Amino acid sequence: MESHDTIRAVQWQEHGLKLLDQRRLPAQEIYLELNDVQSVAQAIKDMVVRGAPAIGITAAYGVVIAARDRLRQAPDRWRTAIAADVALLAESRPTAVNLFWALKRMREAIDAAGDNPLADLLRAAQRIQADDLAANHRMGEAGAALIQPGSGVLTHCNTGSLATGGYGTALGVIRSAYAAGKLSAVYADETRPWLQGARLTAWELMRDNIPVTLLADGAAAALMQQRKVQWVIVGADRITANGDVANKIGTYSLAVNARFHSKKYDVKFMVVAPASTVDMELASGDRIPIEQRDPAEVLQLNGQRVSPPGAQAWNPAFDVTPAELIDVLVTERGVVQSPTPDKLMAMMKNPS
Amino acid sequence: MESHDTIRAVQWQEHGLKLLDQRRLPAQEIYLELNDVQSVAQAIKDMVVRGAPAIGITAAYGVVIAARDRLRQAPDRWRTAIAADVALLAESRPTAVNLFWALKRMREAIDAAGDNPLADLLRAAQRIQADDLAANHRMGEAGAALIQPGSGVLTHCNTGSLATGGYGTALGVIRSAYAAGKLSAVYADETRPWLQGARLTAWELMRDNIPVTLLADGAAAALMQQRKVQWVIVGADRITANGDVANKIGTYSLAVNARFHSKKYDVKFMVVAPASTVDMELASGDRIPIEQRDPAEVLQLNGQRVSPPGAQAWNPAFDVTPAELIDVLVTERGVVQSPTPDKLMAMMKNPS
Repeated sequence: MESHDTIRAVQWQEHGLKLLDQRRLPAQEIYLELNDVQSVAQAIKDMVVRGAPAIGITAAYGVVIAARDRLRQAPDRWRTAIAADVALLAESRPTAVNLFWALKRMREAIDAAGDNPLADLLRAAQRIQADDLAANHRMGEAGAALIQPGSGVLTHCNTGSLATGGYGTALGVIRSAYAAGKLSAVYADETRPWLQGARLTAWELMRDNIPVTLLADGAAAALMQQRKVQWVIVGADRITANGDVANKIGTYSLAVNARFHSKKYDVKFMVVAPASTVDMELASGDRIPIEQRDPAEVLQLNGQRVSPPGAQAWNPAFDVTPAELIDVLVTERGVVQSPTPDKLMAMMKNPS
Repeated sequence: MESHDTIRAVQWQEHGLKLLDQRRLPAQEIYLELNDVQSVAQAIKDMVVRGAPAIGITAAYGVVIAARDRLRQAPDRWRTAIAADVALLAESRPTAVNLFWALKRMREAIDAAGDNPLADLLRAAQRIQADDLAANHRMGEAGAALIQPGSGVLTHCNTGSLATGGYGTALGVIRSAYAAGKLSAVYADETRPWLQGARLTAWELMRDNIPVTLLADGAAAALMQQRKVQWVIVGADRITANGDVANKIGTYSLAVNARFHSKKYDVKFMVVAPASTVDMELASGDRIPIEQRDPAEVLQLNGQRVSPPGAQAWNPAFDVTPAELIDVLVTERGVVQSPTPDKLMAMMKNPS
């Protein structure tokens, strides 16, 4: 770890999985130890851990924990029995594709496991995490290379060490650009309703000595109008074959505003995500299942009602930004300007 | 009052001014009685009362209270002494022009006051409130006439009975359209950081039996993309001679998104405000002073920190939407499509 990357939200330990409870941040830094697959699935569902890559890594370790229990209970038929555990993990969140990608890799590891299956599966899960970290460092450098010195950047949600195996995707680009002395300012949307920006991104950046200024999500357009930012940099939960991007609710509004401010105010829109986020099996973003979360996330704050009885809420967790609004897509396999199906297919053929 | 308009936030009483404390809504419905001009100025500053027209009305009654005290203390030179009180009220909030407009009308009433100045000033203040209510009814009808039956509407902040002399501006249009059976759904941005949408607009609409669905501000673009709304309807704190509009932070983002979704998704953007909001002395919106409010409004929620120590916040209370993004401007003096300086000047020559 380097000086601007000191946090690890998902850690494997001898007895199980240790997760930084992201629901408690920034007030409390509490780690939960999980020792059964049900707890791991619930932790993903309840957003103890969130962020597409971190969800994938957590699910991979969940398979290791499930295998340990199945091997103990029924060593002869653990490969059959574990299918239910993998299915349980797959049901925890519907939108991020890294979850399904990681479970597919773990299913392959189950099939290929030898005389010491637990060691083989643990190695596979640790490989997913290590690969993610390495990919983030590559994306950080590649994305930062696109940023002119003296730029202001705006990010949304949390895409940092808390959301990944470490370093981050969009926040990894910001880490690299900051380390290179290129950034005049880092702005973060507070990101309602869950406040990932205020609670997580700001906590992570302050911890790693990167100054950050928060704003209400609705203020981002005015920030662009005042020429305070030149890049909007976000992550992705799923990217379809044509380059459409599902990401945290609010991302699409930023993309529309970045495009509106592109010519006169020189604002560009960058999406940063590992290749495991790309779902080549879906043709376009309108096919992505969008998770609807509890209206209480909007109707309440910190457990207190902020709205009157009877009011309803519309609370999709994600939105879809069409490829035409994306100036640059950065993955560890390459940088794609103005994504198209052909460019995406070519990029996916590159080595990781 | 009709069935869909039962709330009055600003009420004159024999002994002073009664204000519904909007900081406590929706949990508590508490009315404050104010009996000196300092308390009235502080109530505006602290947002006990907010909304451009309601601020103007409150300040007008503040002048009545100031006159009562000055007449008691120094009946011979009350007209000189009250100048300091008017100046104090003028300093309470910088952006909404209705405040300065109402104080100008009260200064004229001070100059014209006869043998019973207190009665004359009270009549002037009550006239401002009654005129505002009448203007809102006219705007409500005029705006609703533009809306096709079966439309969904989205509003921002609170522009209702709580923000005006009654009925509301943008929310008055929504009241009229709802009463006419034209609306398929009413959506309201929660409107961070102060949550006027969740706390005030939803409370007011539920109280008046108009169903409302809240959303996080960042979700508005996705709402348009899903064809759930055909009109975005907002108020204004100041409109300059060219048609630029200062309004609650987040309005500009909605206008950009409405324009982006205008052709393919048939979304239009309407601004509703009394003629007292139009400042013909400012040529364009970049001249409007924008109030910067306490960063704590973003860094905290309900008095609890939601961000880590050291994080900064950028917290402008308003933003400026250029005239070119406004499809329709509705005032009580007329309806202007695609505002220009000439059209605004012609409209302002119409009778109220």
